Amino acid sequence: MNWTPKNPDFKALVEKKLEGQQLMKRLNITLTKIEAGYTEAEIPFELMHQQQDGYVHGGLTATIADIVSGFAAYTLVAQGERVVTADIRTSYFRPGVGKTILARGRVVKPGQNFFFCEAEVFMVHENGDETEIAHSSSTMAVIKPKA
Amino acid sequence: MNWTPKNPDFKALVEKKLEGQQLMKRLNITLTKIEAGYTEAEIPFELMHQQQDGYVHGGLTATIADIVSGFAAYTLVAQGERVVTADIRTSYFRPGVGKTILARGRVVKPGQNFFFCEAEVFMVHENGDETEIAHSSSTMAVIKPKA
Amino acid sequence: MNWTPKNPDFKALVEKKLEGQQLMKRLNITLTKIEAGYTEAEIPFELMHQQQDGYVHGGLTATIADIVSGFAAYTLVAQGERVVTADIRTSYFRPGVGKTILARGRVVKPGQNFFFCEAEVFMVHENGDETEIAHSSSTMAVIKPKA
Amino acid sequence: MNWTPKNPDFKALVEKKLEGQQLMKRLNITLTKIEAGYTEAEIPFELMHQQQDGYVHGGLTATIADIVSGFAAYTLVAQGERVVTADIRTSYFRPGVGKTILARGRVVKPGQNFFFCEAEVFMVHENGDETEIAHSSSTMAVIKPKA
Repeated sequence: MNWTPKNPDFKALVEKKLEGQQLMKRLNITLTKIEAGYTEAEIPFELMHQQQDGYVHGGLTATIADIVSGFAAYTLVAQGERVVTADIRTSYFRPGVGKTILARGRVVKPGQNFFFCEAEVFMVHENGDETEIAHSSSTMAVIKPKA
Repeated sequence: MNWTPKNPDFKALVEKKLEGQQLMKRLNITLTKIEAGYTEAEIPFELMHQQQDGYVHGGLTATIADIVSGFAAYTLVAQGERVVTADIRTSYFRPGVGKTILARGRVVKPGQNFFFCEAEVFMVHENGDETEIAHSSSTMAVIKPKA
Repeated sequence: MNWTPKNPDFKALVEKKLEGQQLMKRLNITLTKIEAGYTEAEIPFELMHQQQDGYVHGGLTATIADIVSGFAAYTLVAQGERVVTADIRTSYFRPGVGKTILARGRVVKPGQNFFFCEAEVFMVHENGDETEIAHSSSTMAVIKPKA
Repeated sequence: MNWTPKNPDFKALVEKKLEGQQLMKRLNITLTKIEAGYTEAEIPFELMHQQQDGYVHGGLTATIADIVSGFAAYTLVAQGERVVTADIRTSYFRPGVGKTILARGRVVKPGQNFFFCEAEVFMVHENGDETEIAHSSSTMAVIKPKA
C-alpha cells in the first residue's frame, strides 16, 4: 500500500528521533529503511540477544517489532504529532537463530487518532535466506500537540 | 490463586535457566521472586532503557512482561518440559518514568499444552509508590521432551 | 477501582444505546448491571449459542466480552462522545457448558482518547457455581463529537 | 502459501462440522470456500447483525474472523485431531456497512500443537467493491485424540 505522508520531511524527523533512542543503541538495533508508512530494522545477532537456549530472546523480537511499527506510523503523522504504542500483540512462529535479525513494519490502516500496523520479524542466514520467526499486530495512538 | 507445582524443585530449575539469559544480563533485568505460578522481576531504571523522550522504552516493558510471564508458567510444568511464548499482547497505560521498573507475572490458567498468563508492569518511585504502566496477556506453550 | 463518570446520566445513555442493539436481541444478550466503569451481561445458554460440540461458540464469548467492555468504557466518557472497539484479544480457558453465560467488563485505565478494558466470561451452573471460560483485554477508542 | 493437508478428506470433515454449528445458523453465516489452510465465509448483512448505529456489530466481525481462522486450521490437522481457539485478537479498521460481510481466513504458520492464523473481514458493496473493516490474528490449539 502507498500512503501519502502529511509531512514531506518525515525521514529527517525519524532520524532525529533515533538520536535519543538509548535502548536501540544498547541493543545494537539499526533502522535501515524509512519510507512513507514503512520501515525496516536490523540487528547483527550476538550473544547479548540470546535467551538460555541460544535463540533470539522473545523480548528482543517484540522490541524490534514495536520499533518498526511505531516508526512506520510516525512517518505518516502531521508536524508536531507523536506516536505511542497503545498495544501490540506478537506471535512467535519458531525459535530464531541465524546471522541477522530483520524486521519489516508497515501501516495497515492510518487514521486521525489511531494507526493499525503490522510487523514481520525474520532471521537472515549466512546464505541470505530469510526465515520468519514472528509476526505482530499493533494499535498505535497519535498524540496531538497541546493547543 | 495457588497452583501446585508438578516439580518441587521448580525454583532451582528457574535459577539454572537464568544463568544463560544473556539479554537479561545486557539489560540488567533481575528475577527477584520465584513462587509456584508467580514471578517478579526488577530493573533499576537507567539511560540505556530509555526511548527518545526519556521514558521507559516500550520494548523493554514488553520484554520484562514476557520474562515474568514465561517464568511463572515454567514453575508449573513437569520435569523435562519447557515453555515458549506462543503470543503476548501488551497494553501501554502511560509513559514510564521513576526509579525502578517492577513486573509481576502470574499464571491465570494452567494446562497440559498451554498456559494463560498475565503480567503487570509498574514504575516504582523514590518514595516507594507504584504506578502501573503496562499490562500484558499471553499464551505460553508447553514443549514436551522428545520421547 | 472506582472511576468518576463525567456524565451523571451515564446509565440512561447506556440504556438508550441498548434499544438499537439488534445483535444483542438476536442472541438474547441482556446487560444486567451498569455502574461507572463496569457492566455485566448475561445469556441463558441455549442451542442457538452452540458450536458443533455443544459448547458455547467462541464467537459468542468474544461478542459478550466486547459488549461489557465497550459499555464499561461508555459509562465514563463525556456527553456526546462515543466509544468504538479499536482492538480486543480474547483468550479461551476451557470449553463452556452450563446454565447461563455471564460476563463482567471493567475499565482498567481510562483516558482522553482511549480506554483499556478487561472482561471475564463465566459459565454459571445450576447450583450457582461460576467457571471462568475466557478473558479479554481491549483498547477502546473515544470518538469525539464533530466540532 | 500452499500447505499440504494431512487428511485428503479435509473438505468433507469441515462440512460435517458445519452441520452442528448452531450459532452460524442463527446468524446466517455460511462457509463459502474450503481449501487447504484457507476458508471464506459470508453473511448477507441484515438488521439482526447491527449495533445501535446501523453498522456491523463488532462481535459479529470477531465471530466470522474466528470461524474462518479456525476452519482454515482444521483443514490441516490429522484425522481425529480437533482445533480450538487459544486466543484471537481482532482490530477494527472502520465501521462496516454494505451488502455482504465477507471473511477470508488463512493459516500463516502450521505446527504440531499450534497454528497461527489471520483473517481479513470485508464489507462487499452493491457494485462488488470490497472495504476491509477488520483484521485478526489468532493462535489455534490442536487437540489430540485421547490415546
